[in-house]
Amino acid sequence: MYRVDLNCDLGESFGAYTMGTDELILPFLTSANIACGFHAGDPHVMFNTVKLAIQNDVAIGAHPGLPDLNGFGRRNMDISAQEAYEMVVYQIGALYGFVKAAGGTMRHVKPHGALYNMAAKRQDLAEAIAEAVYKVNPELILFGLSGSELVTAGEKIGLITAHEVFADRTYQADGTLTPRKEAGAMITDQQQAVSQVVRMIKEGVVRSQQGKDIAIKADTVCIHGDGAHALAFASQIRSFLEESTIAIRAVSGR
Amino acid sequence: MYRVDLNCDLGESFGAYTMGTDELILPFLTSANIACGFHAGDPHVMFNTVKLAIQNDVAIGAHPGLPDLNGFGRRNMDISAQEAYEMVVYQIGALYGFVKAAGGTMRHVKPHGALYNMAAKRQDLAEAIAEAVYKVNPELILFGLSGSELVTAGEKIGLITAHEVFADRTYQADGTLTPRKEAGAMITDQQQAVSQVVRMIKEGVVRSQQGKDIAIKADTVCIHGDGAHALAFASQIRSFLEESTIAIRAVSGR
Amino acid sequence: MYRVDLNCDLGESFGAYTMGTDELILPFLTSANIACGFHAGDPHVMFNTVKLAIQNDVAIGAHPGLPDLNGFGRRNMDISAQEAYEMVVYQIGALYGFVKAAGGTMRHVKPHGALYNMAAKRQDLAEAIAEAVYKVNPELILFGLSGSELVTAGEKIGLITAHEVFADRTYQADGTLTPRKEAGAMITDQQQAVSQVVRMIKEGVVRSQQGKDIAIKADTVCIHGDGAHALAFASQIRSFLEESTIAIRAVSGR
Amino acid sequence: MYRVDLNCDLGESFGAYTMGTDELILPFLTSANIACGFHAGDPHVMFNTVKLAIQNDVAIGAHPGLPDLNGFGRRNMDISAQEAYEMVVYQIGALYGFVKAAGGTMRHVKPHGALYNMAAKRQDLAEAIAEAVYKVNPELILFGLSGSELVTAGEKIGLITAHEVFADRTYQADGTLTPRKEAGAMITDQQQAVSQVVRMIKEGVVRSQQGKDIAIKADTVCIHGDGAHALAFASQIRSFLEESTIAIRAVSGR
Repeated sequence: MYRVDLNCDLGESFGAYTMGTDELILPFLTSANIACGFHAGDPHVMFNTVKLAIQNDVAIGAHPGLPDLNGFGRRNMDISAQEAYEMVVYQIGALYGFVKAAGGTMRHVKPHGALYNMAAKRQDLAEAIAEAVYKVNPELILFGLSGSELVTAGEKIGLITAHEVFADRTYQADGTLTPRKEAGAMITDQQQAVSQVVRMIKEGVVRSQQGKDIAIKADTVCIHGDGAHALAFASQIRSFLEESTIAIRAVSGR
Repeated sequence: MYRVDLNCDLGESFGAYTMGTDELILPFLTSANIACGFHAGDPHVMFNTVKLAIQNDVAIGAHPGLPDLNGFGRRNMDISAQEAYEMVVYQIGALYGFVKAAGGTMRHVKPHGALYNMAAKRQDLAEAIAEAVYKVNPELILFGLSGSELVTAGEKIGLITAHEVFADRTYQADGTLTPRKEAGAMITDQQQAVSQVVRMIKEGVVRSQQGKDIAIKADTVCIHGDGAHALAFASQIRSFLEESTIAIRAVSGR
Repeated sequence: MYRVDLNCDLGESFGAYTMGTDELILPFLTSANIACGFHAGDPHVMFNTVKLAIQNDVAIGAHPGLPDLNGFGRRNMDISAQEAYEMVVYQIGALYGFVKAAGGTMRHVKPHGALYNMAAKRQDLAEAIAEAVYKVNPELILFGLSGSELVTAGEKIGLITAHEVFADRTYQADGTLTPRKEAGAMITDQQQAVSQVVRMIKEGVVRSQQGKDIAIKADTVCIHGDGAHALAFASQIRSFLEESTIAIRAVSGR
Repeated sequence: MYRVDLNCDLGESFGAYTMGTDELILPFLTSANIACGFHAGDPHVMFNTVKLAIQNDVAIGAHPGLPDLNGFGRRNMDISAQEAYEMVVYQIGALYGFVKAAGGTMRHVKPHGALYNMAAKRQDLAEAIAEAVYKVNPELILFGLSGSELVTAGEKIGLITAHEVFADRTYQADGTLTPRKEAGAMITDQQQAVSQVVRMIKEGVVRSQQGKDIAIKADTVCIHGDGAHALAFASQIRSFLEESTIAIRAVSGR
């Protein structure tokens, strides 16, 4: 039977600032990637978000980012592999504190933003992040862009990994995402988005922007938690996947 | 047989900035309180300091502080008990990541600076911090000012605690430290400092500034890691304690 | 003829986080207090907010706060007078850069949150802040709680000052605001709020919670820029003041 | 008559952390580049450093960096030109506050670390920084790597610029500095370092690592303020320049 995980970045509020609709989106998810205070999140937000995730029986993961709160972790920084290792260890640990205190279990790690993107391509960063995850807890599942260096590094070191795909992004012939600034990067038609996901799961392929089907692995789908249509889309994709007899389960729910 | 722990705040460097002489002071210690990135320390410093502590077979503890890097965590902040809970959970967790990744074991928690001082007096903060420690790991030992609210709160919730005393500070008749800005707050004579410690350990009393002996519990002595005389004093106190047949062992080393 | 200034805290967004409705509230204001990056705001937000204020012909002021982004500058910190001086100089300067680059003129300074509250009572902080303003530019107007130490300090050093009053807060017999946590602290009836302001301006008195009229000086009224009713209230108070033949002008517009 | 400026990065301490030997190096300088709180420095350090610079009659400049205290502003960040503009405006302004409050005059701006290096090559960043300087104060002098995009952008917008050279670095045939990680990047022989500077000033050339003389403009020489030999070298280069009848004067001292 087909199955897939639906993950979303949560806990990205900070102090007096609110971001996202965590409470509303949680019921649609199977995995929550919780920000750890570097690109977003703070101790109070982490405390609350872990509690909410447990209440909703959603698998908890750390969502470490670059130390760039003002840039929301979206600006590439020229960090060394050792720095990547250290910032991931720190952030997994910080979230672990809250998960442990709340009586929950951390299941996975998904890097955020620029760290995620850099780790998709730079092998040294990918391996450093995979090692950080492995050293803190080898049972954690590493989420990364489907087919990326990050997932490869995770598999190499002995982690369970999850290949992540995007419903609302188009793919290039080489399996990478079409850069956001290019025309046709985003899929705005919800039906098309959902169909792309179903095909990735059932057939293991995606139609690239160049018109050719390419192989792709889809263990988990990224659901956006912010924006006007986030909730509607989350609801829709769930319904459609269920209709397509694709079970929706956390990667860790084996 | 008498015994005591010698603890020191370590890992308080940050980025390009060096503080303390961690490598040199470690051989004299039995417990290292490692800064967790709020008042001092950063992921790289934590990585290194945990490694050094393990190499020196010194018990590792978290040293959480207020989120005030510029003030080095020394300025009181009007935080709520909930905020204290959350910032301690976060910081214990963050250090836990490095300890786990390095194959070590975290043994204790000692709050830093203004957080330590506020928790010595404010019962709500003391209980919140004790709860944070307990919830993350009930086997952690809570270090606090001897006879303070923090130690009381730790005992109340079921933690092993360590009453901390100072060799180079004088005490008031009510058991509190003489405030630094008052005359006679500091003991600059090393012989006097060491003798005060021996008496606290063996007789359970200290001569207050008012001239009267008061009861005090001395599980661990704070050793300073910075300043011109830090190493000389650390060496001297160790020798003198050993001559006084007081065993020097980590609180956790039972 | 009676006159009053309507001021509001603006530019309190940060990075990916939005706070307030700056563009919508600006047309109702005569003075904008722009956050300077310590409690809120960042270089990009400051750039935009200064531009918006100039476009709306609203007087620009610096809104310096405590270095506590996570607490939004609302947590008291035990800072020294010298530290207050330095953080205010820094923040006025930072905003000055944007005002100068945009071809505008900075008119006033209003401390934020806990810094404002502490400066209302602690004479040393009040004098340090007044000196900071004076030393950077003696033509800047210092905004402070009506009748507070801050305004007194400003007048003493030779600054033009603005006594600030609140429409939606009740006052105690000693002229202080009723603390928010006490019953009856907030005035939720808009008519009552507006009437209180008109009386403060025209008669120089306010009815205290204890039922007695007390003298109060009202140079500027604090308008909130956030919350569901902010815009409606701003609109209403403007209309009512105009009907009451009270001219609405920036303090600096003499 | 030949002349040159000797500049040094100062005010790079932070909170409890000390960096450099500002008081000792100042007597050897004609220009001080003072950190503005992003990569280093804080309000207290800025206050002190501005005061020291004035006491030593050294020209004051802003030394803006990337918002990366932990990385000391040395890690490239993928910032936009607009972000560069805004962070430079902010930091110049912040320092301006202290200079104004102390009764001094700001004379120049020299970007720090990764911002300096990126602005040497990326034309968009160079132009944004030049515009930031110009808009805040068109009389400020822009310091940049000799022959770089930054100096070119400064000249283009109408700023006076200062081409900066390094005594202790070797140059490539294309006029760029030999990257630090390459062999022969550093000149450790002080005599050779001083001779290179004299030649750059008097002859307008430098012998590249490839053995060929290339043209170079030397308005100001970077003096390091930290490290074991900083003071000795500063003293030596001053003596040697004076013996070579090269006047040592701030760029602004025309």
